[in-house]
Amino acid sequence: MNLLLLEEADFIAADLVVLRDRRLTHMQEVHRVAVGDSLRVGRIGGLMGSAQVLRLEATEAELQITLDQPPPAKLPLTMVLALPRPKMLRRVLQTVAAMGVPRLVLVNSYRVEKSFWQTPFLEPGAIREQLILGLEQARDSVLPEVVIEKRFKPFVEDRLPALSAGTLGLVGHPGQYPPCPRGLDEPVTLAIGPEGGWIPYEIDLLAKAGLQPVQLGERILRVETAVTALLSRLF
Amino acid sequence: MNLLLLEEADFIAADLVVLRDRRLTHMQEVHRVAVGDSLRVGRIGGLMGSAQVLRLEATEAELQITLDQPPPAKLPLTMVLALPRPKMLRRVLQTVAAMGVPRLVLVNSYRVEKSFWQTPFLEPGAIREQLILGLEQARDSVLPEVVIEKRFKPFVEDRLPALSAGTLGLVGHPGQYPPCPRGLDEPVTLAIGPEGGWIPYEIDLLAKAGLQPVQLGERILRVETAVTALLSRLF
Repeated sequence: MNLLLLEEADFIAADLVVLRDRRLTHMQEVHRVAVGDSLRVGRIGGLMGSAQVLRLEATEAELQITLDQPPPAKLPLTMVLALPRPKMLRRVLQTVAAMGVPRLVLVNSYRVEKSFWQTPFLEPGAIREQLILGLEQARDSVLPEVVIEKRFKPFVEDRLPALSAGTLGLVGHPGQYPPCPRGLDEPVTLAIGPEGGWIPYEIDLLAKAGLQPVQLGERILRVETAVTALLSRLF
Repeated sequence: MNLLLLEEADFIAADLVVLRDRRLTHMQEVHRVAVGDSLRVGRIGGLMGSAQVLRLEATEAELQITLDQPPPAKLPLTMVLALPRPKMLRRVLQTVAAMGVPRLVLVNSYRVEKSFWQTPFLEPGAIREQLILGLEQARDSVLPEVVIEKRFKPFVEDRLPALSAGTLGLVGHPGQYPPCPRGLDEPVTLAIGPEGGWIPYEIDLLAKAGLQPVQLGERILRVETAVTALLSRLF
């Protein structure tokens, strides 16, 4: 945790918070703070700054908050991702938040196992928990928007064209395609397939929605690694 | 597992192997192979190609092997990495092997906890196991070389200058440094610090050995994510 994120409910006054949960434990056990110490903090959805420890007890801490810095810029990106297996989903949500993706669409694909849609990790509270871990890691205070699209065809035909309008549309896909471009400044809509890749029908439909296949070389990467590699190369 | 890797001990003739371990289980439970099916294989340290299932029983399988393809090229890179915490070490070893790093030096640093050096995951067999998982994922048959340097100063002063001679020497480090370069063709020696970063003394010593700091932006990434992001941007 490189940033302590504050929820609205933590505030007992405009510049005072009381913490009692895992953040208190972390302050005590990892940061080993004492009264008077300063910590980096951010208000979820708002500014970042510092907190001074006013009071520290076994069950709660009171902090005085100064919020005066903007969070880091997000990437100019909408990411469309075939739903990964549950364990990978949690890590990908952290990575997406840490890397600064502002909008993630989790979509079905032929090679997504149906059981993956049953995971409790898709519940809004569980998604938010992983996103917050990513923001705490990277020092960002703004949650990405996560949209769930359980049906591929209606999403790609009816909603993706509007989402990708005015952006460079790309699909990460192994094969004889142009290499993924580097160091872009323009907005991008990027689709990343499941383990095993998109099927040709899906590639066709994504192309009709304006997303062209690009490749990252012959090595097959895990989803989490592919997400990081594509983002790092694009921006 | 996108590639079945074969050990010398699996061969019962020049083009025949017998498998009995987790690879047999994987073939049966994940790939659901039958007699006559073909699989992608690679000989560790050698060529890649295909295998045909000749015989499949509950406890062993016999495969006929054709090896006729070179493994994918490695990156022109030596990576120097401050030893991560044990759980992260395992994932980083997989990532390093999957991304095509040919040589990894695990080194001490002021912010590496002493206990990390006690982990059984540093034993040669445990390191090899994680590297093989990475190679199986990415479809590569050549193990990276992993060197362990438990003392920072003698390594950086006495051995790093020879390792980095004739390469572009870089240290990934947050701060007011030039951005990490993109799309290089030349050989690189890249050092990546621990959680919390290198200390100034270490940055000075690395600079004297020819490695200059570069940064990836203000977001603080987990070690595994930073490794992937730096490699994807450099090459």
